[in-house]
Amino acid sequence: MEGGSNMEVKSVHLVQVADLPACAALDKYRKQAAFDWKQLRIFVEQPLDLKIKMNVWTKLASDPLFGKYSEASSTDEQKRVTCHQLVRFASTGIYDNLDTTFLLFSSQTKFIMCVNEATAMVNPCLSVKIALGISLFANVILGLGTERHLHFYRDVWDAKILSCLAITELAHGSDTKRMRTVAEYDPAHQQFVINTPDVGAAKCWVGNLGKQCTHALLFAQLIAQNTNHGLHLFVVPIRDPKTLLPYPGITVGDIGEKAGLHGIDNGFIMFHKYRIPRENLLNRTGDITPEGEYETSFSDPQRILGAALENLSCGRVAIMQESSNTLAKATVIAVRYAAQRTQFTDQQGIETPLIEYQLHQWRLFPYVAAAYALKFFIQQFTDKYLDCVVVSKTDTSGFRDVQMMVSGVHAIVCCTKPLFTWICRNALQECREACGGHGFLKSAGLSEMRANHDAKVTYEGDNNVLLQTTSQWLLRQAAAPPPPPADEHLFPASTVRFMAHADAKLNNATVNPSALADVCNPTFIVDCYEWLLCWLLRETRTKRDQCQRLLNDPIAAKSLTQVYAAHTLAIVFAEYNVVSCFWSRCQQSSDAAQRALLENLFYLFALWSLHKHVSVFYQGGLFRGGQVASLMESAILELCRRLKASAVAAVDALAPPDFVVNSVLGCADGKLYERLIESMTKPGSTDRPTWWKEMVLKANL
Amino acid sequence: MEGGSNMEVKSVHLVQVADLPACAALDKYRKQAAFDWKQLRIFVEQPLDLKIKMNVWTKLASDPLFGKYSEASSTDEQKRVTCHQLVRFASTGIYDNLDTTFLLFSSQTKFIMCVNEATAMVNPCLSVKIALGISLFANVILGLGTERHLHFYRDVWDAKILSCLAITELAHGSDTKRMRTVAEYDPAHQQFVINTPDVGAAKCWVGNLGKQCTHALLFAQLIAQNTNHGLHLFVVPIRDPKTLLPYPGITVGDIGEKAGLHGIDNGFIMFHKYRIPRENLLNRTGDITPEGEYETSFSDPQRILGAALENLSCGRVAIMQESSNTLAKATVIAVRYAAQRTQFTDQQGIETPLIEYQLHQWRLFPYVAAAYALKFFIQQFTDKYLDCVVVSKTDTSGFRDVQMMVSGVHAIVCCTKPLFTWICRNALQECREACGGHGFLKSAGLSEMRANHDAKVTYEGDNNVLLQTTSQWLLRQAAAPPPPPADEHLFPASTVRFMAHADAKLNNATVNPSALADVCNPTFIVDCYEWLLCWLLRETRTKRDQCQRLLNDPIAAKSLTQVYAAHTLAIVFAEYNVVSCFWSRCQQSSDAAQRALLENLFYLFALWSLHKHVSVFYQGGLFRGGQVASLMESAILELCRRLKASAVAAVDALAPPDFVVNSVLGCADGKLYERLIESMTKPGSTDRPTWWKEMVLKANL
Repeated sequence: MEGGSNMEVKSVHLVQVADLPACAALDKYRKQAAFDWKQLRIFVEQPLDLKIKMNVWTKLASDPLFGKYSEASSTDEQKRVTCHQLVRFASTGIYDNLDTTFLLFSSQTKFIMCVNEATAMVNPCLSVKIALGISLFANVILGLGTERHLHFYRDVWDAKILSCLAITELAHGSDTKRMRTVAEYDPAHQQFVINTPDVGAAKCWVGNLGKQCTHALLFAQLIAQNTNHGLHLFVVPIRDPKTLLPYPGITVGDIGEKAGLHGIDNGFIMFHKYRIPRENLLNRTGDITPEGEYETSFSDPQRILGAALENLSCGRVAIMQESSNTLAKATVIAVRYAAQRTQFTDQQGIETPLIEYQLHQWRLFPYVAAAYALKFFIQQFTDKYLDCVVVSKTDTSGFRDVQMMVSGVHAIVCCTKPLFTWICRNALQECREACGGHGFLKSAGLSEMRANHDAKVTYEGDNNVLLQTTSQWLLRQAAAPPPPPADEHLFPASTVRFMAHADAKLNNATVNPSALADVCNPTFIVDCYEWLLCWLLRETRTKRDQCQRLLNDPIAAKSLTQVYAAHTLAIVFAEYNVVSCFWSRCQQSSDAAQRALLENLFYLFALWSLHKHVSVFYQGGLFRGGQVASLMESAILELCRRLKASAVAAVDALAPPDFVVNSVLGCADGKLYERLIESMTKPGSTDRPTWWKEMVLKANL
Repeated sequence: MEGGSNMEVKSVHLVQVADLPACAALDKYRKQAAFDWKQLRIFVEQPLDLKIKMNVWTKLASDPLFGKYSEASSTDEQKRVTCHQLVRFASTGIYDNLDTTFLLFSSQTKFIMCVNEATAMVNPCLSVKIALGISLFANVILGLGTERHLHFYRDVWDAKILSCLAITELAHGSDTKRMRTVAEYDPAHQQFVINTPDVGAAKCWVGNLGKQCTHALLFAQLIAQNTNHGLHLFVVPIRDPKTLLPYPGITVGDIGEKAGLHGIDNGFIMFHKYRIPRENLLNRTGDITPEGEYETSFSDPQRILGAALENLSCGRVAIMQESSNTLAKATVIAVRYAAQRTQFTDQQGIETPLIEYQLHQWRLFPYVAAAYALKFFIQQFTDKYLDCVVVSKTDTSGFRDVQMMVSGVHAIVCCTKPLFTWICRNALQECREACGGHGFLKSAGLSEMRANHDAKVTYEGDNNVLLQTTSQWLLRQAAAPPPPPADEHLFPASTVRFMAHADAKLNNATVNPSALADVCNPTFIVDCYEWLLCWLLRETRTKRDQCQRLLNDPIAAKSLTQVYAAHTLAIVFAEYNVVSCFWSRCQQSSDAAQRALLENLFYLFALWSLHKHVSVFYQGGLFRGGQVASLMESAILELCRRLKASAVAAVDALAPPDFVVNSVLGCADGKLYERLIESMTKPGSTDRPTWWKEMVLKANL
């Protein structure tokens, strides 16, 4: 199962993409596509991944428990069903024999991530429960624990225990350093005494903690011999697995109703001098001797925190994978609806499908392009990220290079996670609106996707806070460009090497397009992005230096140079990474018609993204005169127009089976109105309410 | 109760604004405000309106039924509670003796609208039920019915019947002309036979129809003597008020789960040759004689439809009022949270409230400014709208002027409704994100507000479709500017008179600001907006003429000139109206400190709105060189910085009582963490789930 290219070529033949059912309204457009949508489906998902996902979907589709739960079910019932699904999932065999099937860490992790993607598309609450409860816990035990913690690893995969990850405190979200939960070492009993100093330090929002988990991975300040050694991770028993009753010394409960993700029991916990064994400290990076001496191979406690948190950033990678899938699913629904739904008539009196309208194309097609862009990026980046984790574990290339690589990967995660989650958020809203009133039906699926996705913009790092990590890193890179690393391949910072010549770039840059072909051109796009990065970097640095001179306060100076500067810089850097990856992936397509489609999507995504920054181009003087912006706009509209014939087939190539699309508006069979009617006339819909007598009209009295 | 200025001055003394509870974190900022927030509260809401609203809130707050229902209650339970509230509302006496209290139509309507605003802020489902079930129905009966329909008017106010408004058909949303429900006249029985030709023509999404209403206002094609006379309105009995069982000959039911507004029973209905009396046709604009002759005072059936629909546009005015209140409430929550929530430390190690961060100010404060802008606009516009309705009913100024006035008011509604609902949508999302993870709690209130508001962008006219009405009207105005009307005052089209000199404006326009004061300047702002409108109008016209020459197809030409042209034009026109109104309202403030705040908010809203169009200014050549855009950005940040000291008091002046704010994050007493903890540790939160045994861990077996 190692992802070598030979394996991939062979496995193409192992994946069967099923035919789609006939449907006049959709087939009319499907027939217009010049490319083979099945080949594209395999190209988009990659054959091995697609095989893994299809296997998950087939297994879940065959079990009624994984069918959508009753639409009107209470949040408690949704928690119950998700809990049931968790138990049942273990018996599907999907996760059996992981350790013997996969010899390499990276291939095992990729497999787990792939299963997570497929599961999240069926029920995101279930995938979160599995990740927090099992796989992320197992991963952290391996990464930050030692031999003595392996029994936890075995127990969690054996479904003997279920975990959660307790980081956030009530009064502290993003500022992890200020956490106040304490684990103080007591040498007399060789135990840590965990305490919540006050209610503001209660851990909260912890998924799985509210009702179900048996163990928590807890972040707390390690104190020994009256010295605070900073944040460390502890495995803390919470509930008796036999009774699911909490142990004495803790107050634990469910935080209550949320905006979405109702199937997850997010919890709070307070520790009242609660004792755990010394051995429950995850001690790969630092340990306490039985006597209470602190030992570490790191010189800087800050770095220990970094290492611990770094290990969790696979959560952000998963968020990006899931966001790209949610985005894809939303565009599948909206484009299939747009091809079937007619509104107003043309000059001949024939009703026009929404997809024919320029405005409708412009609202939806950039998100179809974005779905491809994000999917390609996160596929490539996941491999780079896993390489990075592997290398940082083995550490053969010299510590400095590894550090550079880790911080570079981290910087990219910190800007692409916001970009992904915001694009997906916007797409969900636009798709919901593009489906008109029917998009407001729960059975359309879009509102639930939106409510569930919404958490992603602020969890695993608030987007706006994460972006500051990236801009800080970019400023550091530009201020003192590091020498090339020994192993060029490992270094994601190669993406910013052009900044070494920033001033020259800014002084000499010209773009002077005069025809559509001049803007639908990778050189134009790369030139614009590199100029934009250089310009925003210089703006940010100049403004920050001014503030620093005035205030002599680097924290204030940083805060005062976010808007129209550092904040934009980080977002643009994310776009640049995604756009660059998209173009390279286009070049890997060997089929001419397929490649033509992909390039159309690439130009659309790139120009649509660049267009958001037109004012900066004029401000900085790269664009002069009205023509450049007008050309970009004409190009975007022309790309939309060209895409119309391919759009339905292009979303077919993104679409999971109808069971997973799970929307009355977006099924592959195009039975739009049949499904709408079925959804609206469910059993009971015409019944008088049980409480009808409370509807006292005076005629009644 | 007539709103003359003398009355207003006197009534200031009749409104008591209660003191706010003390709170260190909020008081720190409240003290920094130079203006009197209580005076501003009265200025913002207007004294009479505030008095009406306070009365509604006091009455509802005193009755536990109007407290928020259990957060986890099912959608059926939410429908039951809302239905109960509807019944209880009738007994509050708020709507008693309307006809004797208000002698003028406009003052009665204003009162009803004001009560609707107050009710919608407590439970938007309740206000929709009242509007669709009672007030809108009553209004339509008066407007489009005659003597013979007055018994419906009396019965609905007496709570003997409850109505709904059946317009939308399953396969036809925006294109009302294509509706296919038929009412065919049968002279033998002097009845209309109502029929749904096929399931695609089923009426759907009809609020109150799903479970409760007894009568429907139905839009159907009137056919008599084999001639289709176009859409007409009929009063159709649906259910027996004594049993709430539907009458034979119809299939009626609830359409099922939605994305929000769970308290409303949206329904579908199909008619199977269902008979109603001839008299149930609302016959003010057209009637059928007993023999089946069609009689009308209008020459054009299209115009009849227009008149009928026009009467319903008070629904759009209400949507704007409600959106401005929702926006205000969202900013109240987010700003109060931002003043209390700290995150990261400053150079001295002191934790910094979110409101101190530039980025946070920039994310929130423009929406505070927008809340003022939208509130001022809709207050002024409601009066103009009601004048227009009154004049169009009495029609003393000559038919041509009335027609011009009605179409002008309609054009403004059609662009401001989208602007209001989209700004509110964006604000809700930004406020939710600005409250971080806690914003995802249901008890924060923002997610439910977002889900309920979401319907507004596509109902009562899909936003994107409505905008086309405005741009078409603007193009017509510019092509053939109508002569000034006899009564200048009545004519909203006076707002577009500058377009008569569009070419001169475009040729001679220059802006050349060199300091912040040059952009924080009403002349600069008006110049920019008028230029923008002229430029977009010329762009739209030029592109449309080109398309028309090429295609000879006006429908296609219109469709092909929406993006970057007509669509933007209509939005900019809405902004221009709102901005103009905001400035004139600032000038009405007689207190210097208050006026300084209002002007700060005005400039922030205006520049923030203009900034979205910077690329157009460069494209069209009004802006040259980078300085103008940079100055606008510096001004926006400086206005945010100045606003910081006033922001908490500024939202106090927008805030309804805590009972109505109904958010653990946004109460006036600032007990943020106390309320969060109370919300998270509700009774039952620490209980083991009832279904805990289903959570089988293997340790259990």
